[in-house]
Amino acid sequence: MPANGFSNLKAVVFDTFGTVSDWRGSITRMGEALARDKGIDGVDWEAFARSWRAGYRPGMAKVISGEREWTTVDVIHRERLEEILPQFGLGDTFTEDEKADINLFWHRLDPWPDSIPGLIRLKSKYLISPLSNGSLVLLASMAKRAGLPWDFVFSSDMPKAYKRDPKVYRSAVELLGIEPHQLMLAAAHNDDLAAARTEGLRTGYINRPTEYGADQVKDFEAEEGWDVITDSVEGLADQLGC
Amino acid sequence: MPANGFSNLKAVVFDTFGTVSDWRGSITRMGEALARDKGIDGVDWEAFARSWRAGYRPGMAKVISGEREWTTVDVIHRERLEEILPQFGLGDTFTEDEKADINLFWHRLDPWPDSIPGLIRLKSKYLISPLSNGSLVLLASMAKRAGLPWDFVFSSDMPKAYKRDPKVYRSAVELLGIEPHQLMLAAAHNDDLAAARTEGLRTGYINRPTEYGADQVKDFEAEEGWDVITDSVEGLADQLGC
Repeated sequence: MPANGFSNLKAVVFDTFGTVSDWRGSITRMGEALARDKGIDGVDWEAFARSWRAGYRPGMAKVISGEREWTTVDVIHRERLEEILPQFGLGDTFTEDEKADINLFWHRLDPWPDSIPGLIRLKSKYLISPLSNGSLVLLASMAKRAGLPWDFVFSSDMPKAYKRDPKVYRSAVELLGIEPHQLMLAAAHNDDLAAARTEGLRTGYINRPTEYGADQVKDFEAEEGWDVITDSVEGLADQLGC
Repeated sequence: MPANGFSNLKAVVFDTFGTVSDWRGSITRMGEALARDKGIDGVDWEAFARSWRAGYRPGMAKVISGEREWTTVDVIHRERLEEILPQFGLGDTFTEDEKADINLFWHRLDPWPDSIPGLIRLKSKYLISPLSNGSLVLLASMAKRAGLPWDFVFSSDMPKAYKRDPKVYRSAVELLGIEPHQLMLAAAHNDDLAAARTEGLRTGYINRPTEYGADQVKDFEAEEGWDVITDSVEGLADQLGC
């Protein structure tokens, strides 16, 4: 890709969980804070975070396959929470209201340290938005709390489809009224970028090798020749000349 | 409505053209600046702005009635521009590229002076967004340039429907995952609020009696007992306790 290869680029959209936000660290910290408040001992909250996340792909897979009708990630998160609480000895610890609030941990994820500085730079030149499997209310609440400077929000409940369904990438291109090559997806997940490239989008790989901690089995490096390969949102801004 | 009548309110969405943005003043100013740059004399740009806007409702009406398939306001604006240029003696003045840029005047509207101060206050307590007949790219571009601090953007090209189609208000409620009474529409147009109230939304009337200038024939005052009646976005923030 030549230095001026992005001269027609209009917008950069981001995978959120893992790429922009550190879900594992955030859920761990919120769990530990909750435990201190409630006097709960002996829970490995980092393992809790990983276990909670492990229900995400299977939950979406049932929707993607058509086995289950459209269901938001908020519902998928809540169902998985009910599954894992007993596994961590917390089956009878929380009221319904408390569980509803714990489910909102996913609305309060902290960004990686490079995310906001990089997004502010990218925003000066491009329209920026999440392109995430999160719900609108999750993504908007997360951005509001954390100060993510999105120009707008693409959520999975707009097309009622989850990545890697081609419909998601196509709906973003259509709503922006641009050509696919004028849009870049930035993501820490090779398969997300592969699906975007198939639809004609530009691709930016942001390496997040610690995203899943002990559960990480892939995405330790770029597996294809993505248009940009970097290890931070600031690195993406560098390569896009922002 | 008692003082605590808004305790369950979660989000406030705004009509944009006329309520948040001063389209007539903005188009007039941009037209006058263009005329100076190009050495064009003798055009009444305020009349040009009003005439351009006069094509907006008829253009949407054909889509709403089903006579025409889904068409964005950007296309409707461009078609109307082609109609009025000859009427103002400008039929052969501009190149295609120049006309494309003039059409983007609608992406660069200035807010009324009270809009940003009021929105910043409302944002501290509520999710805020446009609920506009504008396209996503129009609304996002306008917000980016003007500094409108939206949490996210609802555009007409998401539900592919124009207000006052009930689908627009329902899709906002659905995407936010809230009850209709937890959402308020703020608008300068009584019929927009009436359609929102029919769907169960709260209603905030912001009086903009100079919006249409000489063409204004209605919306000089609140015509029903809306939940809030005020004359600025700052006034709305006052009444919602922000």
